[in-house]
Amino acid sequence: MLYRDAGVDIDTNNRLKKTIGRLARSTFTPRVVSDFGMFGSLFALKGFKNPLLVASCDGVGTKLTVAKMMSKHDTVGVDLVNHCVNDILTLGARPLFFLDYIATSYLTPKTIQEMVSGLARACRKHNCPLVGGETAIMPGWFRRDDCDLVGFIIGLVERGKIIDPQRLKPGDILIGIPSSGLHTNGFSLARKVLFQKAKLTVKSRVKGIARPLGLELLQPHRSYFFSVYPLLTRVKAIAHITGGGLFDNIERLLPAEVSCIITKKSWRPKRIFKLIQELGDVPTDEMYRTFNMGIGMVLFVAPRNVNAVLAGIRGTRVVGKVVRGTFGVSII
Amino acid sequence: MLYRDAGVDIDTNNRLKKTIGRLARSTFTPRVVSDFGMFGSLFALKGFKNPLLVASCDGVGTKLTVAKMMSKHDTVGVDLVNHCVNDILTLGARPLFFLDYIATSYLTPKTIQEMVSGLARACRKHNCPLVGGETAIMPGWFRRDDCDLVGFIIGLVERGKIIDPQRLKPGDILIGIPSSGLHTNGFSLARKVLFQKAKLTVKSRVKGIARPLGLELLQPHRSYFFSVYPLLTRVKAIAHITGGGLFDNIERLLPAEVSCIITKKSWRPKRIFKLIQELGDVPTDEMYRTFNMGIGMVLFVAPRNVNAVLAGIRGTRVVGKVVRGTFGVSII
Repeated sequence: MLYRDAGVDIDTNNRLKKTIGRLARSTFTPRVVSDFGMFGSLFALKGFKNPLLVASCDGVGTKLTVAKMMSKHDTVGVDLVNHCVNDILTLGARPLFFLDYIATSYLTPKTIQEMVSGLARACRKHNCPLVGGETAIMPGWFRRDDCDLVGFIIGLVERGKIIDPQRLKPGDILIGIPSSGLHTNGFSLARKVLFQKAKLTVKSRVKGIARPLGLELLQPHRSYFFSVYPLLTRVKAIAHITGGGLFDNIERLLPAEVSCIITKKSWRPKRIFKLIQELGDVPTDEMYRTFNMGIGMVLFVAPRNVNAVLAGIRGTRVVGKVVRGTFGVSII
Repeated sequence: MLYRDAGVDIDTNNRLKKTIGRLARSTFTPRVVSDFGMFGSLFALKGFKNPLLVASCDGVGTKLTVAKMMSKHDTVGVDLVNHCVNDILTLGARPLFFLDYIATSYLTPKTIQEMVSGLARACRKHNCPLVGGETAIMPGWFRRDDCDLVGFIIGLVERGKIIDPQRLKPGDILIGIPSSGLHTNGFSLARKVLFQKAKLTVKSRVKGIARPLGLELLQPHRSYFFSVYPLLTRVKAIAHITGGGLFDNIERLLPAEVSCIITKKSWRPKRIFKLIQELGDVPTDEMYRTFNMGIGMVLFVAPRNVNAVLAGIRGTRVVGKVVRGTFGVSII
């Protein structure tokens, strides 16, 4: 018996590694000291005064199922990088470098190459080298063509510039930045409602949505880095609205005795959210706990900075305010 | 419909997060600036002269299947941390911090808690805080009780102390350090041979192996950090023998015109390797390309340092030498 007979083809894997290496090197900056494919990746840190590293890890989740239904894997890598970039941005950090983990039961070089090309594209855009990663072949682990895509980002913030939500106080204003759609959260519910319950397909056309349903769902997670980073001195706290929605992602920021009131009517969620709610008969609270509902990031701003932030970031609007209280987040 | 009906139970997940947070905090050092559960994890870097970050990512692979067959998940976390620690040790780095990613289709809090407790135990041992991570619930992705466990490590090496294999030259000596068994590689082949072809079970007793077969397979990946790190000034290159075995993991280190000859007879692989080879009728070369064959790490040492390294690390022995040539690795 050969290893190949157990489902692991090392030769194909080695060829694939070369392709991944080429894509990864396209993202390198002078701070990357090592080549791709060693046991670890070296990244130079000199020139910072009092640096704090910021690390975060995330996956694309079952958005991958939609990518598979569409045979279109070139956007999920963008989702992943942008998601991770946004996560560390909430602490005031900018990206330093990125690693990926891809797990699959069968080597499907085309799929993996598409995913990595998306990663590389988004990494180059953020000047954030893809310094390494792992492609794991786990026969029998996933159903054919299923795979998992996970990212790990390291960023940096100078100690004096950390965004610290402890400074929040009653009177501060919540400014919402539009999402591009579901981003990478709530796909298990969305798929169940749209594809299982309502029997729609990725090709379905729905009134009020310009693209076929699959493409609408695949809209990549927006990166807020370039619009938010220049305005960080005007921002007191940032919530990235991911799994758990506006509730969980804001609640975990709030200092004691401080709560938020969010006004639903201050923005109009994209049609896709209403569609899922209607077809799935999903309670409104559950919608707001599962999806971003059209707001991908919330900036907490002192009243004197509201106009500057609204003017500085396209599409932003005031969505709520910080108040005294221990109820957490109330969406009215 | 609720999110729960699509297989994602946010409340159970939140309870689990608290447990994971408690375990993670048990690993924290003063350099960890943030608490667990924020969008990113903050780690202080002050006090280093010219630091290089070293990053690596790995998974436990289908060793998880054996853990599942045994209903014993408290060792795979140790595997993962030790694997990652060894990877960055090859560059001369010591661990700074760790993040984990756990993906599962159904929340099985006991399993996840066991895995994280293993991670935390190994992290504490290496003074390497588990600063964050992600638990992804992906309904329908894995078969019931299957999951994936992935780790990301960041380490640090001062620029002047990087272990650089480019210094290798003919005459240097290969010193092997024993592995504890399969570590985390080749499990797809091992399972296919032992459980499918030979119909053994995790409870099978095999002549020459002290433990039941399942426990023998689950032997955690050894960490070589504490024995190797103090001797780094005497070492010219390090290969961590993982997937691809002695061939791939040494070949990727070798400078041009430099090759290695390894003498098989210089050590005796543990019985488990022979068992897999015999029961699976696996060609010898394939064995050495798939498994570590009893050598978990190879240190490349100048002749004058051989005795000091052999004396400093228990169980080590000379296993080969560096020669002129372009054939790569030859195991004779």
